[in-house]
Amino acid sequence: MVDTTKTVRFGILGCAEIARKVARAIDLAPNATLCALASRSKEKAEKFAAENGFPASVKIYGSYDRLLEDPGVDAVYVPLPTSLHVRWVVMAAGRKKHVLVEKPAALDVAELDQILAAVESNGVQFMEGSMWLHHPRTAHIQQLCFVPSSAKSIGPIHFIHSTATMAATPEFLESNIRVKPELDDLGVLGDLAWYCIGASLWAKGYQLPITVTVLPDVKRNSAGVILSITVSLLWDQPIQTLATIHCSFLSHVSMDLVICGSDGSVHLRDFTIPYQETSASFDVTFGAKFVDLHIGWNVKPEEVHVVNELPQEALMVQEFSRLVAGIKDCGSQPSAKWPEISRKTQLVVHAVNKSLELGCKSVSL
Amino acid sequence: MVDTTKTVRFGILGCAEIARKVARAIDLAPNATLCALASRSKEKAEKFAAENGFPASVKIYGSYDRLLEDPGVDAVYVPLPTSLHVRWVVMAAGRKKHVLVEKPAALDVAELDQILAAVESNGVQFMEGSMWLHHPRTAHIQQLCFVPSSAKSIGPIHFIHSTATMAATPEFLESNIRVKPELDDLGVLGDLAWYCIGASLWAKGYQLPITVTVLPDVKRNSAGVILSITVSLLWDQPIQTLATIHCSFLSHVSMDLVICGSDGSVHLRDFTIPYQETSASFDVTFGAKFVDLHIGWNVKPEEVHVVNELPQEALMVQEFSRLVAGIKDCGSQPSAKWPEISRKTQLVVHAVNKSLELGCKSVSL
Repeated sequence: MVDTTKTVRFGILGCAEIARKVARAIDLAPNATLCALASRSKEKAEKFAAENGFPASVKIYGSYDRLLEDPGVDAVYVPLPTSLHVRWVVMAAGRKKHVLVEKPAALDVAELDQILAAVESNGVQFMEGSMWLHHPRTAHIQQLCFVPSSAKSIGPIHFIHSTATMAATPEFLESNIRVKPELDDLGVLGDLAWYCIGASLWAKGYQLPITVTVLPDVKRNSAGVILSITVSLLWDQPIQTLATIHCSFLSHVSMDLVICGSDGSVHLRDFTIPYQETSASFDVTFGAKFVDLHIGWNVKPEEVHVVNELPQEALMVQEFSRLVAGIKDCGSQPSAKWPEISRKTQLVVHAVNKSLELGCKSVSL
Repeated sequence: MVDTTKTVRFGILGCAEIARKVARAIDLAPNATLCALASRSKEKAEKFAAENGFPASVKIYGSYDRLLEDPGVDAVYVPLPTSLHVRWVVMAAGRKKHVLVEKPAALDVAELDQILAAVESNGVQFMEGSMWLHHPRTAHIQQLCFVPSSAKSIGPIHFIHSTATMAATPEFLESNIRVKPELDDLGVLGDLAWYCIGASLWAKGYQLPITVTVLPDVKRNSAGVILSITVSLLWDQPIQTLATIHCSFLSHVSMDLVICGSDGSVHLRDFTIPYQETSASFDVTFGAKFVDLHIGWNVKPEEVHVVNELPQEALMVQEFSRLVAGIKDCGSQPSAKWPEISRKTQLVVHAVNKSLELGCKSVSL
């Protein structure tokens, strides 16, 4: 049985496509409930609520302000265009609403710092919507492969490679908010690259790279928004590690993540969005060598399956709600982990932009 | 039944470890036979022949020169250190021996051009030992994925990623010829990177990239030989394509090749040396999209199995011998395909070295 006293009541700001997925996740999470939806147009919000089967108990607001004034809302999910994050997250924090914000967290580090100052001074929880971090597969890989004392650690990491690509439709490339400079001028860098940068940082235990370098295949649309980019990140501790990242709205779907250490490697091909909802897998290879004469390998990759009872986005909502309930009901402090992860990701995005401005020169962090 | 009149008679120059594998391949290929082995020390050659079960019919020579004078030898396999290729391949060609030479073809383009001039003027076949190109999987991928008119082409290629890494033993890093500047000063660049550069060129139909850029994670041994390197190649036709390549003697074994186009992608994890000898597989994904709400994919990768009756190195010997027999018995011209592939690979290796010299600046080809 769900302890309803600990159920966190969510409002959603805006009717973005992704809000459909997160509304469902709120419904699935045992400690969360959807209680309000706002759009600048009440008609639009009503239509969205009807189309997505929201229960009649969900209040519909024709303005974001009105939703934020509702004392029955504990937390808001903010899927607005990135350029609007700073305004509405700061506003929400000021009204003591906990905030789950869609990625990228902000347009730049300065805006994110405004956001984080607001959530900190108001004592509310901040989390950004990188769902894959909440899949049990992610923790499973970490425990199996990254813990030095574990029997099967992959050892110090030499190389990380990740991709996040999708073939956007002509309509998307023409009109989606992610390719409109006035709404989200980071383009693919704020959208798909956010995942790959996040995954590289995760693999390196959230150590920041020492340099960030853009490779010379950047593609932009006519408005200058980045549609495709390749980036390399370099670390020098505990050993030199290089990560390459390729992200594109112009290519076939790929979501690869490969991490190669001294003693083993991990391969995923669906790291941001698992092929299916109820389980996911990854391949690990430990102690591979070529057999005599180099006519084969001594081992093949081992496929590890991880079952998840809830989809990763529901697990994200559950974790966020757990933290919110702790603050609300037990006087806990907001967790600093999630703001820190977002800020480090944003710092790397910032460095990528700087490298771009400098004509693909390496930028130190 | 093998037509013995078309059997090509091989001599091997030197007792390198890789010669064990190729001697076996010569034995397995239906149109080739091993007839001679030379080392600078006759005792060493005799020991090598005994240890590897060579039949008594194989003549043992205590000098390379003597083997090259043997009129019973049609072709030589040259697994000598790269620094010796130019001398001995030119010498072999001068004696009208066809030449199968271990990769890298030469230390630099100038030396390779000397080699290619010698083989051309003597009308002998040249081939370099990139075995993976001869696996039927390679042709299968090409036909299935790269032919624009095929039902399932992956479309124009946006991105290629390959790795070739292995954790060399301390003994290897101390004393192997591949890390000795006087024997093979290309290090991992001539050895493992040769595969990745070759695979990138292959995927792009042997179009040369417009620029080559080394990324800033180069590792060298105390003698200055490269042990680990990451490189990016850029093409601008028919669309912009970027390839990233990571090669290392310091990391766990990985042999990844990923090719991502507009309409599909191909993944291999054992592209240079298949997991097993008798079959190999690759994964293809065509027309992948996220399902509604982005909670999964509409398709998963399809695993395609390719059976090979002979190991890839025997297929290489068979193809080389087929060409030699054509020249010897039917008056055919040597095939220009294999020298051209080697030269393009060497040109890219040369550009990588130049980018290194220039502190990781992009180098135009």
